[in-house]
Amino acid sequence: MIRIGIDALGGDLGVATTVPAAMNAVKNNKDIEIVLFGDEAKIKPLLTNSERISIVHTDKVMDMGEKNPMIAVRKNPDSSLCMAMKAAKEDSVDAVVTSGPTQGVVMAAHMIIRKLKQMDRVALCPIVPNYDGKPRLILDVGANVELRKEHFGEFGLYATVVAKEVLGIKDPKVGYLNIGSEPGKGRELDKEAYEYLSSFEGINFYGNIEGDQVINSPVDIILCEGYGGNICIKTLEGTAKMMGAMLKEEIKSSLGGKIGYLFMRKNLKRFASRLDAKKVGGAMIFGINKPVIKAHGNSTSDIFEGAINQAYKMVKTDIINKVVAKLPKKDEKDE
Amino acid sequence: MIRIGIDALGGDLGVATTVPAAMNAVKNNKDIEIVLFGDEAKIKPLLTNSERISIVHTDKVMDMGEKNPMIAVRKNPDSSLCMAMKAAKEDSVDAVVTSGPTQGVVMAAHMIIRKLKQMDRVALCPIVPNYDGKPRLILDVGANVELRKEHFGEFGLYATVVAKEVLGIKDPKVGYLNIGSEPGKGRELDKEAYEYLSSFEGINFYGNIEGDQVINSPVDIILCEGYGGNICIKTLEGTAKMMGAMLKEEIKSSLGGKIGYLFMRKNLKRFASRLDAKKVGGAMIFGINKPVIKAHGNSTSDIFEGAINQAYKMVKTDIINKVVAKLPKKDEKDE
Repeated sequence: MIRIGIDALGGDLGVATTVPAAMNAVKNNKDIEIVLFGDEAKIKPLLTNSERISIVHTDKVMDMGEKNPMIAVRKNPDSSLCMAMKAAKEDSVDAVVTSGPTQGVVMAAHMIIRKLKQMDRVALCPIVPNYDGKPRLILDVGANVELRKEHFGEFGLYATVVAKEVLGIKDPKVGYLNIGSEPGKGRELDKEAYEYLSSFEGINFYGNIEGDQVINSPVDIILCEGYGGNICIKTLEGTAKMMGAMLKEEIKSSLGGKIGYLFMRKNLKRFASRLDAKKVGGAMIFGINKPVIKAHGNSTSDIFEGAINQAYKMVKTDIINKVVAKLPKKDEKDE
Repeated sequence: MIRIGIDALGGDLGVATTVPAAMNAVKNNKDIEIVLFGDEAKIKPLLTNSERISIVHTDKVMDMGEKNPMIAVRKNPDSSLCMAMKAAKEDSVDAVVTSGPTQGVVMAAHMIIRKLKQMDRVALCPIVPNYDGKPRLILDVGANVELRKEHFGEFGLYATVVAKEVLGIKDPKVGYLNIGSEPGKGRELDKEAYEYLSSFEGINFYGNIEGDQVINSPVDIILCEGYGGNICIKTLEGTAKMMGAMLKEEIKSSLGGKIGYLFMRKNLKRFASRLDAKKVGGAMIFGINKPVIKAHGNSTSDIFEGAINQAYKMVKTDIINKVVAKLPKKDEKDE
């Protein structure tokens, strides 16, 4: 049995998405057992089938009024998010899935489940939808603000294992996000990272890629520091969202547009779904002792079920032990 | 008379766009005089009206086989790009417009026309189309790889003058591109920049803005260092381009799509033009002794004409002297 802990109160819709998602996940996979962390009074009316689903009661939601995520985690130990993390720490679940606030999730994973001792840093790794319909991994997109070249090595290794085992990519190509394609481009860090990754064992390094390639990427994994990665992924999401809004406006603006819409409704639906970040999966937090998936805040229940299956796959394929086996051994004194 | 120097051989289409654009610009504006730097044999057959247009002959195009832009500029002093820059340096034209390669243009402006002694750094500042149809300025997007907080002050001042005088924005709001909206977010540089800009005289500082706001921005000017700005602008352009391609594919994929297209052709055309970066104007190079506009490499002649008018406006409104008057005086010894 693979035991998934779910922050049932997280996200914009809370139990309305997490509970149906949990029921579907256990129905579709005989191998999953789920623990819902959340308000029993809210969960029970929705839980029409509790086979392999248990509840650990708490009515506290992670309070994000507190802007400093470290303080937020400290102040809310009995929130559904922190309790799910604690269960993972104590090994009563194998992975955590949540739609909670990103910085709170990263911080709670770090502070409660704790970092793998073989890794120096934790990374936030979403899946980017691409033009060719195949997902790409991009990391880090905001767990860190400053990184050294060595961190890209461990992130590249981790992402390579995930790309192979979870996404089924045979020999994942790894690129580095930069402001030019040639080796000497970018800041000192970028030049160092290029050189370091070029001779790093265990990854298939392709070279630099630029911002306009992220959505039509020649590589499967894009490495970047948290600042650049965050700007990149948010710009991509914001642009896709506003373009969708503009297209709607233009179509609605005339009778011809409205009639045309009736003919191509299915085409436009397919168009809209091609860059839907929610559909490709949740963001993963790498470098923690257990798999943690951060689903989109406004996930529907089928999207959240996808995130549960993603966590299931990470446990089933034993991602963390496979990564640890590949990472250079750290001297005990380093800790 | 305002004298604009044009790199007639630059860009993907060369004289086929630059010459008609020059003729239209002088026809539509009695105040413009143009010098075309380029191959007489190619220009003359297209130049059906040479009123207020002269030619300075050269058949050399800036060679971008050389990857290092500094070496490229040194090796090609008689390229149409470098000759236009030299004319600006010698004050025989008031501004330069080119569709040449970005890094080559920035480097040639820097090396030939030279930096304003009142500014520490040069910045590349494109205009970003936005959801509301109003243009925004974003800088720097790649002229620099490392900046200090003080540079954002001078960039903010320069962009504020341009936003007022060229774009007609009354009291331009200035934002800082960051990975969170609160003051304490980001790298050390980002925190320092926030604090520095908060109390900087002469700009209307709004605070941080995030990547997903760039295309629907609450501010008129977005400040960022060259790495983050370059990633942002390229991601935006790449996403817009690939979304356009996806929409075309989906529409063509079925008969319903093709019929629907006939009804909403105009709507889709308007949609496509809303994020067309070429239409909003060329990228400006700030911090040089003369205005320099870098138009898109694949500009059509009306787009290139727009870039000529942009340069005209910058000269007409005396941008550089207005900026210099606002910049803190530098000690002569600083040079």
